[in-house]
Amino acid sequence: MSQRPANQLFDAYFTQAAMREIFSDAGRLQGMLDFEAALARAEALVGVIPQSAVAPIEAACRADRYDLEALQQAIMNSGNSAIPLVKALGREIKRESPEAERYVHMGATSQDVMDSGLVLQVRAAFQWLEHNLGALADVLAEQAQRYAETPLAGRTWLQHATPVTLGMKIASWLGAITRHRQRLAELKLRVLVLQFGGASGTLAALGEKAMPVAEALARELDLHLPEQPWHTQRDRLVEVASLCGLIAGSLGKLGRDISLLMQTEAAEVFEPAGQGRGGSSTMPHKRNPVSAAVLISAATRVPNLVATMFAAMPQEHERSLGLWHAEWDTLPDIFCLTSGALEQALLIAQGLEVDTARMRNNLELTHGLVLAEAVSIALSQRLGREQAHHLVEQCCRRAVEQGSNLREALAQEETVTAELPADELDRLLDPAHYLGQARTWVARACAEHHSFTSSC
Amino acid sequence: MSQRPANQLFDAYFTQAAMREIFSDAGRLQGMLDFEAALARAEALVGVIPQSAVAPIEAACRADRYDLEALQQAIMNSGNSAIPLVKALGREIKRESPEAERYVHMGATSQDVMDSGLVLQVRAAFQWLEHNLGALADVLAEQAQRYAETPLAGRTWLQHATPVTLGMKIASWLGAITRHRQRLAELKLRVLVLQFGGASGTLAALGEKAMPVAEALARELDLHLPEQPWHTQRDRLVEVASLCGLIAGSLGKLGRDISLLMQTEAAEVFEPAGQGRGGSSTMPHKRNPVSAAVLISAATRVPNLVATMFAAMPQEHERSLGLWHAEWDTLPDIFCLTSGALEQALLIAQGLEVDTARMRNNLELTHGLVLAEAVSIALSQRLGREQAHHLVEQCCRRAVEQGSNLREALAQEETVTAELPADELDRLLDPAHYLGQARTWVARACAEHHSFTSSC
Amino acid sequence: MSQRPANQLFDAYFTQAAMREIFSDAGRLQGMLDFEAALARAEALVGVIPQSAVAPIEAACRADRYDLEALQQAIMNSGNSAIPLVKALGREIKRESPEAERYVHMGATSQDVMDSGLVLQVRAAFQWLEHNLGALADVLAEQAQRYAETPLAGRTWLQHATPVTLGMKIASWLGAITRHRQRLAELKLRVLVLQFGGASGTLAALGEKAMPVAEALARELDLHLPEQPWHTQRDRLVEVASLCGLIAGSLGKLGRDISLLMQTEAAEVFEPAGQGRGGSSTMPHKRNPVSAAVLISAATRVPNLVATMFAAMPQEHERSLGLWHAEWDTLPDIFCLTSGALEQALLIAQGLEVDTARMRNNLELTHGLVLAEAVSIALSQRLGREQAHHLVEQCCRRAVEQGSNLREALAQEETVTAELPADELDRLLDPAHYLGQARTWVARACAEHHSFTSSC
Amino acid sequence: MSQRPANQLFDAYFTQAAMREIFSDAGRLQGMLDFEAALARAEALVGVIPQSAVAPIEAACRADRYDLEALQQAIMNSGNSAIPLVKALGREIKRESPEAERYVHMGATSQDVMDSGLVLQVRAAFQWLEHNLGALADVLAEQAQRYAETPLAGRTWLQHATPVTLGMKIASWLGAITRHRQRLAELKLRVLVLQFGGASGTLAALGEKAMPVAEALARELDLHLPEQPWHTQRDRLVEVASLCGLIAGSLGKLGRDISLLMQTEAAEVFEPAGQGRGGSSTMPHKRNPVSAAVLISAATRVPNLVATMFAAMPQEHERSLGLWHAEWDTLPDIFCLTSGALEQALLIAQGLEVDTARMRNNLELTHGLVLAEAVSIALSQRLGREQAHHLVEQCCRRAVEQGSNLREALAQEETVTAELPADELDRLLDPAHYLGQARTWVARACAEHHSFTSSC
Repeated sequence: MSQRPANQLFDAYFTQAAMREIFSDAGRLQGMLDFEAALARAEALVGVIPQSAVAPIEAACRADRYDLEALQQAIMNSGNSAIPLVKALGREIKRESPEAERYVHMGATSQDVMDSGLVLQVRAAFQWLEHNLGALADVLAEQAQRYAETPLAGRTWLQHATPVTLGMKIASWLGAITRHRQRLAELKLRVLVLQFGGASGTLAALGEKAMPVAEALARELDLHLPEQPWHTQRDRLVEVASLCGLIAGSLGKLGRDISLLMQTEAAEVFEPAGQGRGGSSTMPHKRNPVSAAVLISAATRVPNLVATMFAAMPQEHERSLGLWHAEWDTLPDIFCLTSGALEQALLIAQGLEVDTARMRNNLELTHGLVLAEAVSIALSQRLGREQAHHLVEQCCRRAVEQGSNLREALAQEETVTAELPADELDRLLDPAHYLGQARTWVARACAEHHSFTSSC
Repeated sequence: MSQRPANQLFDAYFTQAAMREIFSDAGRLQGMLDFEAALARAEALVGVIPQSAVAPIEAACRADRYDLEALQQAIMNSGNSAIPLVKALGREIKRESPEAERYVHMGATSQDVMDSGLVLQVRAAFQWLEHNLGALADVLAEQAQRYAETPLAGRTWLQHATPVTLGMKIASWLGAITRHRQRLAELKLRVLVLQFGGASGTLAALGEKAMPVAEALARELDLHLPEQPWHTQRDRLVEVASLCGLIAGSLGKLGRDISLLMQTEAAEVFEPAGQGRGGSSTMPHKRNPVSAAVLISAATRVPNLVATMFAAMPQEHERSLGLWHAEWDTLPDIFCLTSGALEQALLIAQGLEVDTARMRNNLELTHGLVLAEAVSIALSQRLGREQAHHLVEQCCRRAVEQGSNLREALAQEETVTAELPADELDRLLDPAHYLGQARTWVARACAEHHSFTSSC
Repeated sequence: MSQRPANQLFDAYFTQAAMREIFSDAGRLQGMLDFEAALARAEALVGVIPQSAVAPIEAACRADRYDLEALQQAIMNSGNSAIPLVKALGREIKRESPEAERYVHMGATSQDVMDSGLVLQVRAAFQWLEHNLGALADVLAEQAQRYAETPLAGRTWLQHATPVTLGMKIASWLGAITRHRQRLAELKLRVLVLQFGGASGTLAALGEKAMPVAEALARELDLHLPEQPWHTQRDRLVEVASLCGLIAGSLGKLGRDISLLMQTEAAEVFEPAGQGRGGSSTMPHKRNPVSAAVLISAATRVPNLVATMFAAMPQEHERSLGLWHAEWDTLPDIFCLTSGALEQALLIAQGLEVDTARMRNNLELTHGLVLAEAVSIALSQRLGREQAHHLVEQCCRRAVEQGSNLREALAQEETVTAELPADELDRLLDPAHYLGQARTWVARACAEHHSFTSSC
Repeated sequence: MSQRPANQLFDAYFTQAAMREIFSDAGRLQGMLDFEAALARAEALVGVIPQSAVAPIEAACRADRYDLEALQQAIMNSGNSAIPLVKALGREIKRESPEAERYVHMGATSQDVMDSGLVLQVRAAFQWLEHNLGALADVLAEQAQRYAETPLAGRTWLQHATPVTLGMKIASWLGAITRHRQRLAELKLRVLVLQFGGASGTLAALGEKAMPVAEALARELDLHLPEQPWHTQRDRLVEVASLCGLIAGSLGKLGRDISLLMQTEAAEVFEPAGQGRGGSSTMPHKRNPVSAAVLISAATRVPNLVATMFAAMPQEHERSLGLWHAEWDTLPDIFCLTSGALEQALLIAQGLEVDTARMRNNLELTHGLVLAEAVSIALSQRLGREQAHHLVEQCCRRAVEQGSNLREALAQEETVTAELPADELDRLLDPAHYLGQARTWVARACAEHHSFTSSC
């Protein structure tokens, strides 16, 4: 589409194709042109412009008719993209109908075009997000159930703690995604609104016809009509950015977990390998987490892009200079990076490779110590809490000092063996028997997911 | 409360007293202690601990009993505030009831205490926010109506454009506040939830009693029971931070507008002066916008604190090190700075000083040019759009060149005077007659405000 | 160069063409290929590979030979750009010399290629920066001297204060630019270093030849050889980002000042208009600060991109996943946005339009009050500080109350007129006589500029 | 020092005591008072005020004389800390000498006091930083040499790669610290400058005496006299913030590495345990990285605080509102968090616990695959690169498939054993023999460290 020098080498890796399309130059132009076409229809409906002007205007409202190179240059003089586009649009209409040209863009201002066009892009992005968050949630729900009883070491401070299940871990990823879907549903109504105010936001140029045109225009674009124009009240867009930031953050957590689990020393869970992904010919054991890298990268970059959107909120009077401008490439970047993370998360979730044997082995790394709590509780019921706690602590210490297993240390302690026969001890020291509500969390997360999905 | 070196000189200026109290050391401790007391009650209810243990535990759960200095030091070894607090709590209970001491904190982990305690602080902060956002909205609604027909120059790119009204400007501030109140109402349910998972999040130590205890505990604290623990899924807290960021951003816009309107060259609207606020003995004309400074400062700082919350989302496995820690002082700072901005915004809104005469004068600065659009539209209906536009443009250019008023330039143009008699011209060039939907926006914003308020 | 969907509509406005070229896909590839070619030369010199392999390798090291589309796709599997490029390079060499292909990339790792290639891009960017910072400084020095005695209102808190000169204001912009040039000179030596470590940073694959190759390679690329590889020590790159952030911040200040001075109410200083820049056909008085918008936008965006670079510093072990990735598009964005701001700042500085008459008029806005200090000091020498201060304060208050000029209020005060004859009062109330060291600051800033420039 | 509600619970953990002291309320006041005392001395020297005024002014310039509570409140009206402090100072002087009171703060403005006072705090902070960066570098140099030949797995993408040494890893931390010390040395001259401009920066109130006073004042405070005042040119302070950000980032990398090495699965290197640090009574195997948490937390928070400093650069005209304010608590926070990270890094470095046996064991986790490169190179010299590479690749694949050691797979391959006798194979597969320039990097980093230190 362009011969201009581009910096896109990493686009396919970091961002998702459909989202890039939505926020491409063509997508941006088409959003603005859709606004102009709808404005013509609305104004014809209300009688502000003749009905005959509509068709020529609509015909010219196709992004592929415009010269991006020329627009790019013209923006340098105008300071926004709408002024040159509307001029070019006028020329384009004129070629077919000089009469119609006089009726284009009536009563609107540049920011109306740019902001409403952006909202149309955001709507398309929301649809992509809804679909793909839903798809990810489906896969995660499935995987959470598959591994609902698969124990692995709980890890706090990156140290082994009492066991958890892989299903419960996945369910925690799922829970976050479900909440993001709820958030998206909530803010959609608030965000997908028309921007239409004219020069200073009063719509004065349209006189008495202003509100009827505004209403018709909103209908034409299938957007809500907000209580007032929002040219310098940008909270809706920042809210959108924040939602993306939340999604990217949660995916970053997923990516962080995966990359840690894939470590050579842990080697419990892997991204799918497939066709040499992350492989190394010289080091065949290596499984580079190339998808997790995208998730972590997005979770590192998006927060600061979101901060830019927040920082750009104090926009002056009826139209800002500089702060409004700061949004133009930032919000698209936020969407694109978030989409890339979501695409890779789907890849990970769908192709998750799990080494349950290794999980079992790793649970033994602390020689049973992570289950001391289980023994302590069992003994408490027989010996009282104080004594039980004291005994187990001693056994733990001894196990650590001797490099032996807690099982052995306990077996050497008569007070323990008197209360807990060998098979009972075995059971207590089996991680599979100390998983608490792990199953409950999976069930609840899946139920919440299914309930949200069926409500959509 | 402390002899420790503090850096609080600007606290009263930048933050609000009640919010500082909520997020003080005492507030933090009390949140954690409220959790412990409620846990004891819940576990006694469910039969995990004896009922007799409850009273001694509750009695010890008062923040003022604890030595902050000692806790501060102990945190250096434990890496969090709950471990030393629970130890100190144990000692405190023991002094009254050694028996009861054995039953404190049963089945809970440090993060349960800290996170649930934090949620209690957040709830108090929400109440403050709800009240004060409501109060600000009330005042803004009143002021918007008062100045609904007060014209002033619209300003785009900091250049005069077609006129707006002060009421409409205020209504735009109001609209943002109303949306923030809606957001707060939406996220409250999602955010005010218990955190309770035990060591790794499975509640294994409580065995079969886990869910009954969790349910009772949530009831005791009047919090929702979430679908699962959220120790490393921090999206709720980040969502809260984002809301504060949105509020701070909107207030920053208000502050930016006020500071620009207060400029010596504009001098249209002022913060209340009162008792030497912002005054200068050597320069008696000066009206330093000391409140607006707080708003702009918050809108500069909060975005990046919010970014920290986003950046801290990818928390490892079942408990993070470092990222969780990054939240501890950041979220309180966000709330406190937002509260300070809100406090000052209320001061501004309540005491707004308006110089309507100056507004009128400033509208003349461009010698009528900002109303060229009005004349152009009126002429269009008589002469056709093309000719009208061309004529007005010529008059504008002449007015600029001659340094004269557009009124004069138009009067010199026979084609114009033939169509528009002098009084019609006067009317067209009166800003008060070219305010479009300014009144509508005020009405709609106020209606939305009242509708939201009555639904609360 | 590509048919991929691009989001570049605002590139020409926000970024500078030569810098975009440096950080284009082609620029990135060429940087990596220059590394590979230099590596071949160095290894041939040291005897690691045969001299005959050099020419075929060099011949293939031209960016335009490579299919960006294919590379973009391959990156998705490899997780970086060097692996697929080196593969493609191998194929390209093979077509001419299968023998030479065996000797490409010997002992190097992907990160060596990418990081060293990046350093080459950074070097080109430094040259552009040096040149353009110098050019801006030259223009500012000239303008500072031109307006060294042109008084305008000092403005603190956006309120008029004692007068300053336009030259002094420009000199303060200049001072910052000079410091940035010093910083660039300082960090250049530290930053323009080779990255060369092999798989884990030990260069083990090159055995005894490692250091000789490293030294030769550094020489070939005209880079410094650092004390050790820096694959996960990114402080140099972050330092570069910070410098850009500083530049963008200082230019943001310049843009902020210009946009405020251009306000319809102030109208003292303007961006050059030229060919309809920032103009409006419907509002011919408007002078939209389209260049200042770029400066403010960059100063809003760059800080958070710099924050991403800081946030990406804690890179794991010998090669990071995710954090390293976060740099790849961020640093180029930082450079490009900074370059765009610098380009527009040059436009502003070169074409600065100054309305000295308006400045004079605006100085009168406070009816002489901004010069009360001058009178007070003059009277102090005659009446003592206490009485003088008191008298002037009274006159100021009266002037404000009566809406009269301080000159009149003072003239009504006999104690004053007894000490200060009318012409003395006139002189004291003439801003041109109360400019303090304004000239000194201009002279010193220009001297510093010339001294730095001549030392380059 | 205060009864005001404080939020300091984590101060001792996250920040260092001496730095907190420097940036305490008392430290801030004292900085400002030192400025006032020095100004009196300077003005007496130059003859602007009588010598007799100096002693009473100096006597009153002690921070402990002032009521922080009252100042905190007064700031709300004045919008900065200097106005109320100077008033209180005046009252304090008056109690001893009403005459002297008339001569305090002559010709200075609030920002002169606050900024110069801040520079004095920054100077003290620099001294602390210099000392502690030096101390950390010393310890790291020592540890790097101690472990210069201790092999452990290199890890790229968190996957095992060819071996490195612990010494080399430590040397990379050291290198960054040395560069930070260089940076500090470079910027010190530029940063430690007087701010002195009077009302609008012209020093007009001091007439002819302005420059002599400025020079004397700079001498009195032992600060450099800059080319011009810098009230709205904040690049120096932002540069300081950036340096702290760089330090925090490098320490974050150190903390990240430590926390990963401490993982239960790796268990190679540990923070010192000492007196229950990071311990857990219930899980005696746990070694929570409580110091690393501080480093990671700082590296997460500081980048965004630095971003605030960058964002606050575009300060309006001669004194900003809001942006200047945004610095006041941000820069102290940056210094304090950086100091806390540095303090904990010193603890880690000094008490580093190393399990070399475990490192050896972990190197075996990939069954020799990480050394395939070494074998491949050795074989290349005998069989040619192509065949050698192919052979080793096959053996690697077989080893992975069979779960056997690469040693065995190679031994089964006759072509290999024909070229490489058993002992040669053993040597090649011994990590200690494939460490490349690891020792060189240690030596160079230590040499650079010693060279810098001796140049101080």
